[in-house]
Amino acid sequence: MSGPEKMSGVLSPVVTPFNADLSADAGRLVRQCRWLLSQNCGLAIFGTNSEANSLSAEEKIDLLDALVDAGLDTGRMMPGTGACAIPDTVRLTSHAVKLGCGGVLMLPPFYYKGVSDEGLFRGYSEVIQRVGDSNLKVYLYHFPQVSQVPISLDLIERLLKEYPDTVVGIKDSSGDWSNMEAMLKRFPGFAMFPGNETVLLKSMQNGGAGCISATANINPGAIAALAANWQSPDAQAMQDKMNDLRQMMQQFPMIPALKAAIAHYSGDTDWEYVRPPLVELTLEQKTEMLAELDKRGFAMPGLAEAQAV
Amino acid sequence: MSGPEKMSGVLSPVVTPFNADLSADAGRLVRQCRWLLSQNCGLAIFGTNSEANSLSAEEKIDLLDALVDAGLDTGRMMPGTGACAIPDTVRLTSHAVKLGCGGVLMLPPFYYKGVSDEGLFRGYSEVIQRVGDSNLKVYLYHFPQVSQVPISLDLIERLLKEYPDTVVGIKDSSGDWSNMEAMLKRFPGFAMFPGNETVLLKSMQNGGAGCISATANINPGAIAALAANWQSPDAQAMQDKMNDLRQMMQQFPMIPALKAAIAHYSGDTDWEYVRPPLVELTLEQKTEMLAELDKRGFAMPGLAEAQAV
Repeated sequence: MSGPEKMSGVLSPVVTPFNADLSADAGRLVRQCRWLLSQNCGLAIFGTNSEANSLSAEEKIDLLDALVDAGLDTGRMMPGTGACAIPDTVRLTSHAVKLGCGGVLMLPPFYYKGVSDEGLFRGYSEVIQRVGDSNLKVYLYHFPQVSQVPISLDLIERLLKEYPDTVVGIKDSSGDWSNMEAMLKRFPGFAMFPGNETVLLKSMQNGGAGCISATANINPGAIAALAANWQSPDAQAMQDKMNDLRQMMQQFPMIPALKAAIAHYSGDTDWEYVRPPLVELTLEQKTEMLAELDKRGFAMPGLAEAQAV
Repeated sequence: MSGPEKMSGVLSPVVTPFNADLSADAGRLVRQCRWLLSQNCGLAIFGTNSEANSLSAEEKIDLLDALVDAGLDTGRMMPGTGACAIPDTVRLTSHAVKLGCGGVLMLPPFYYKGVSDEGLFRGYSEVIQRVGDSNLKVYLYHFPQVSQVPISLDLIERLLKEYPDTVVGIKDSSGDWSNMEAMLKRFPGFAMFPGNETVLLKSMQNGGAGCISATANINPGAIAALAANWQSPDAQAMQDKMNDLRQMMQQFPMIPALKAAIAHYSGDTDWEYVRPPLVELTLEQKTEMLAELDKRGFAMPGLAEAQAV
């Protein structure tokens, strides 16, 4: 296989910091990514939790350039590049490959619903052929609850057959373990990242690649430690502890909740800004969430220092 | 009220012609739009049937410029400008307003599902304020089956209260007459366009503004005639005849079916190209559809001449 190695371990779909005028803040993003790397956590920037589809292609290119200019390791970057329009997907993907990103996470075109596997195959093919670079490593993005456009096992099989050196993995955010298990069995060597750390141990035991999870924005160290030590005797205890945190966080709207936690632990309330159609947590929600975190002795070690300018 | 008059009558969500390499073909689009105007049909370019979300913002701007450069009446244009990312929506909307478009048709941001009315209100507000032009006339776009992000009556009420001179109408593609009827009753003067001509007569009888319908791509003259003559004695017969055509067309995937019909009646097979994730009709589907059209003595008067270069 040519090009970058397959990616593995834990990646964070890094939340995107905004200013009061809702412009993206590259400086804070760079610092956040540096902190995540220090926690042994890779950078799945421009994911669902990054509000990536609320950013224009130009904004994403500028932010990616800022991360690279800051000297962060592009091998640990898996930017989301899948858009509704093929020209946008090609533009962002080509840029990511040119910069040396370890991979890209690619949503299918998600405006039209009920589309055929043939249409999705053609969409991915068109992008891969236009980018035309052996360094391109595509991780498919299966998130039927949000994209409403599922990626079937038959589609994966067809893509793997046609592009074995390019289509190398998937993020499965369906929450459906039976789908993840089926992929692990049917496609040995295909890098399967669950979109949720509650199945991390089970996934590693069955040949999974790691995970790409919302909560890795706030709990990266613990999740990365389990991915690295899943064969250790206390792996189940580690899993149980992070499940408790995840389940608590899931009681709140996830993206604003992650941002409110980062705002609190970094001491920078600007982190709370989200772009419409999302809204920030209510004061009541925020108070409740922070109390729950406090009750668990939760901390984000080194974050305040990393974010201090 | 300042700025353009409210739009009315029948508009076509104009299908976008592609070349074999899937690039957009501005020349054919200009000629198609000219033909539609000759049939008394306005131009809701960049709608769902236009594969607008399969076009980049740059492509849409270039196509709109081509229509304006060709001297077509911008007052009859209602380009779709709603994207997932506010910067894209603002960019396209500002451009349309600057060119003098009679209105814009604005999808809500459609990636995130289950979002609140508050979040959608903020999204529309942000766009309206950033565009900041009294000539902006927004037609909301309610299409829950595809966007999966419905526009509630309460959201409309709030937008009308805050932006009475800007938010002036809606396209309702839900197919749910009770929703359309509720809007006509609750918001007098609000321009309600059903997304389907099968309720055109009923809609006109209840104060509707016209319709914006897929099939207006191939049957514009008949639909426009009913909108103009809904009080005539043979209105119901006109309605029945177009319903029959619509119901037949709905047996096929609509966008490729419209394009196959235009290809056939213009004599230019390049019209059949669609962008992934859509696929063209199978030969069997095309043959069946053309036989059904033929059985009805269907024609697209003047199309071949209009498209001849």
